Amino acid sequence: MRTQVAIIGAGPAGLLLGQLLHKAGIDNVILEQRSREYVLGRIRAGVLEQGTVDMLDEAGVSARLHQEGLIHDGAELCFGGARHRINFKELIGKTVTVYGQTEVTRDLMDARDASGAKIVYEAESVSLHDFDGKSPKVRYRKNGEWQELDCEFVAGCDGFHGVSRQSVPQNALRTFERVYPFGWLGILSDTPPVSHELIYANHERGFALCSMRSASRSRYYLQCPLTEKAEDWSDARFWEELKRRLDGEAVANLVTGPSIEKSIAPLRSFVAEPLRFGRLFLAGDAAHIVPPTGAKGLNLAASDVHYLSRALIEFYTEKTNAGIDAYSEKCLRRIWKAERFSWWMTSLMHRFPNTDDFGHKIQEAELDYLVSSRAAQIVMAENYVGLPFGD
Amino acid sequence: MRTQVAIIGAGPAGLLLGQLLHKAGIDNVILEQRSREYVLGRIRAGVLEQGTVDMLDEAGVSARLHQEGLIHDGAELCFGGARHRINFKELIGKTVTVYGQTEVTRDLMDARDASGAKIVYEAESVSLHDFDGKSPKVRYRKNGEWQELDCEFVAGCDGFHGVSRQSVPQNALRTFERVYPFGWLGILSDTPPVSHELIYANHERGFALCSMRSASRSRYYLQCPLTEKAEDWSDARFWEELKRRLDGEAVANLVTGPSIEKSIAPLRSFVAEPLRFGRLFLAGDAAHIVPPTGAKGLNLAASDVHYLSRALIEFYTEKTNAGIDAYSEKCLRRIWKAERFSWWMTSLMHRFPNTDDFGHKIQEAELDYLVSSRAAQIVMAENYVGLPFGD
Repeated sequence: MRTQVAIIGAGPAGLLLGQLLHKAGIDNVILEQRSREYVLGRIRAGVLEQGTVDMLDEAGVSARLHQEGLIHDGAELCFGGARHRINFKELIGKTVTVYGQTEVTRDLMDARDASGAKIVYEAESVSLHDFDGKSPKVRYRKNGEWQELDCEFVAGCDGFHGVSRQSVPQNALRTFERVYPFGWLGILSDTPPVSHELIYANHERGFALCSMRSASRSRYYLQCPLTEKAEDWSDARFWEELKRRLDGEAVANLVTGPSIEKSIAPLRSFVAEPLRFGRLFLAGDAAHIVPPTGAKGLNLAASDVHYLSRALIEFYTEKTNAGIDAYSEKCLRRIWKAERFSWWMTSLMHRFPNTDDFGHKIQEAELDYLVSSRAAQIVMAENYVGLPFGD
Repeated sequence: MRTQVAIIGAGPAGLLLGQLLHKAGIDNVILEQRSREYVLGRIRAGVLEQGTVDMLDEAGVSARLHQEGLIHDGAELCFGGARHRINFKELIGKTVTVYGQTEVTRDLMDARDASGAKIVYEAESVSLHDFDGKSPKVRYRKNGEWQELDCEFVAGCDGFHGVSRQSVPQNALRTFERVYPFGWLGILSDTPPVSHELIYANHERGFALCSMRSASRSRYYLQCPLTEKAEDWSDARFWEELKRRLDGEAVANLVTGPSIEKSIAPLRSFVAEPLRFGRLFLAGDAAHIVPPTGAKGLNLAASDVHYLSRALIEFYTEKTNAGIDAYSEKCLRRIWKAERFSWWMTSLMHRFPNTDDFGHKIQEAELDYLVSSRAAQIVMAENYVGLPFGD
C-alpha cells in the first residue's frame, strides 16, 4: 500500500490533519491502534479556542459544533468566597466554544467516512521505518496479517504513549517535564451545569472546576492527592466536597445526580523537542502534555496541525521545504507559551502541599491583582482564548 | 519631652512622614540611632514611582529632584543576546524618575532642618513602651543621658533590623519570608551609564542590571552566589563578567572605571502582619522587604507613609479613627501586590541554581511572551511605575 502521508493515530489531531490534507488533494492513510468505539469512549476536554473552531470550519466538519456548541464569553474565578468574572468578549473581543472533544472526534470520523479516505482501526504493532530518508515505511498488523505502508511523510499524532515519539533515537530528543503533586478527580453527570460558564475555584481545601459538555451534561473536578482512588469517592462524597469549595450562590444552584463516569487523572507538563525528525513529524500529545487547567491540550494539538497541514500543502503545491523546515520551531514557540499559561494557571488555582506561607500569600496577591487590573485580565483572556498562530 | 507623633528612624520613610505631619501642623520628633552622616552614607535604590515623586512634591522637598532627576520613559530587558524596550510612557502614559535614595534623604533632612522640627541623631538604646494604651513613651539615651519622649502615636520607620517590630509581642505578629539562593554584587562608579535607561539582563551566567544615579554616576549589579565575597572581585573582574552578560551594543558602549563602592547584598522577600499594634504603626522596611529587582523598596515605604500620614492627619483634624483602623489593611493590599511583582521579576530575570530544565524553558517562554504581548507589557509597566494607591 502506498500513500503520500501516513498519519499515526485517529484522535482529533490525526483526523483533523487527514481531513485538511484530503481536502487539499493530498493522499493520506490514518492508522489507529484502537477501535473506533474505544477512541470515541475516551472522555477528554471540551473548551475550543476560536482558532480551533476556525480549523474545524476549514475542514468542513463544524456544522454540528455550531448547532450544539456553547459559546462562552467569559469564565469565572472563585476565591475568598466570591466569584469574579473574566469577560473575554468585552476584554479582547473573543470567545471560546464548549463542545466535547469526543464530539469533535465523532464529527471528524464521520467526515472521514464520507470522504472515502482510508482509515485503519485496530492496526496493531505499528512501527515506523526509514523516516530519515525519502521513503519512510510504516509496518502494522491487521487481522493477524502484516501490512506495509509506503509513504513520503509520517505524522505522529498518536499521543503521549504512542509509538511515534518512541521511534525517535533517544539522543535526538530533549524532554522537559513537571509533575504536579496532586490529581484531578473528575465526574461526568447528566445534570444541568451549575453556571452557564466555567467556574475555576481556588479554595483552602483545594482547587475545583465546574465545567460542562452541554446544557444537560456537567463535568466537575476536584483537586485531590495522588494517593486517592476514584472508587473511594461515592457520588455523595464528591458532591459534598465540591460544595465545600464553591461560593454560596454556586452551592444553591448546584444540581447533583448520579455520575456516569468517575476517574482520577494526574497533572503533568511535558514537552519533547524537536517536533521533526527527517520525514517524521510529531503533533499533539505525542510531543507535549499540559495540565488541564486552562484547557489547552486539544487546542495545542490543533495548532500543531495548523502548521503541519500548511507545511505539507506548501510542499506538495509549491515544491518548497520552507514550511516543513520551520515546523518544529513555529510549533514550539506557541507550545511553550501555552505550557507557560497552563503552568501559571495551575500554579495560581491549586493548593500546593509543599508551599510555604509566603507562596500562599503570593497566590492570594496574584488573584487580588488579577481581578483588580484590566491589563492582567487581558493577559489571562488572550491566553485562555488562544494566542494567535503568528503566521 | 512631649510630642504628638514619635517617629523612629530618619530614613526616607521617617523623614517623609515627619515632613508631611509637620506641614499639617502635627508635632513630631524623629529619633535616629545613627548619625546624619552615617544615614547619608548608605547606598540605596534610585528609581522613584510617580506616586513617590507626588508625595515629595506634597512635602515640598522636590526642587532638586526635578532639576537633577532623570525621567525614564521605559526600561530594557536583555536576553538571548538582544534588548527589548518596555515603553512605559507609550503603554500607560507614566514614567519613573531616577534620583538616588541618598539624595531624597538629604533633601528631606535639609527640609527638616529648615522647618525647625526636632530630630535627634545618635539616639541610643531606643525602647518603645505603652503603645497599647493612649500614652505611649519612647525611652532613649543621648550623650549618655536617658531621655523619655511622651507621645500619642509611635511610627516605626526604623528598618528591618530596627527596634519597632521587635517591640511587638511575638504572638501578635505573622511573618512571611522567602530567601533567594543568590545575591547582588553591586558597584558604584563615576562613569557615564551604558544606556540612558535601565537594562535588566537575563543571561545564562546570571542576572545583570545596568542602572545609574545620574548622567555621570553608574550603578551596576551582577547576580552572584551568596558564598562570594566582594573583596574577591577586582574592578577588572567585575567589568569582565558584566560584559559577558550584556548584548554587543551594551558591551561596545560600556565605559569602565574605578569603583567607588562595592558590596554584596542578599535578596529577600519579607512581610510582617499586621502593621498596627494599638498606637504603634510600622512603615517601610520595618514591616516588609522586597528583593531589589523592580525597585519597589523605597516606593513601598513611601506608600505606607502615604496611608499613615493621611490617617494621622484625619485623626487630628477630623477626630476620626477610620484611617488609623484601615491603615494596616490598606497598606497590606498594596504591599502584597508589590511583593508579588518583585518576586515575579526576580524569578523571571535570575538563574536559579536548583531549577530544572522545565523551569528554565518556562522562564524563556515568559520572556518571549512578554516581548510579544502588549497586554503583558502593560502588566509589567503598570507594576513597575507603581500601582495606584487606591484611595
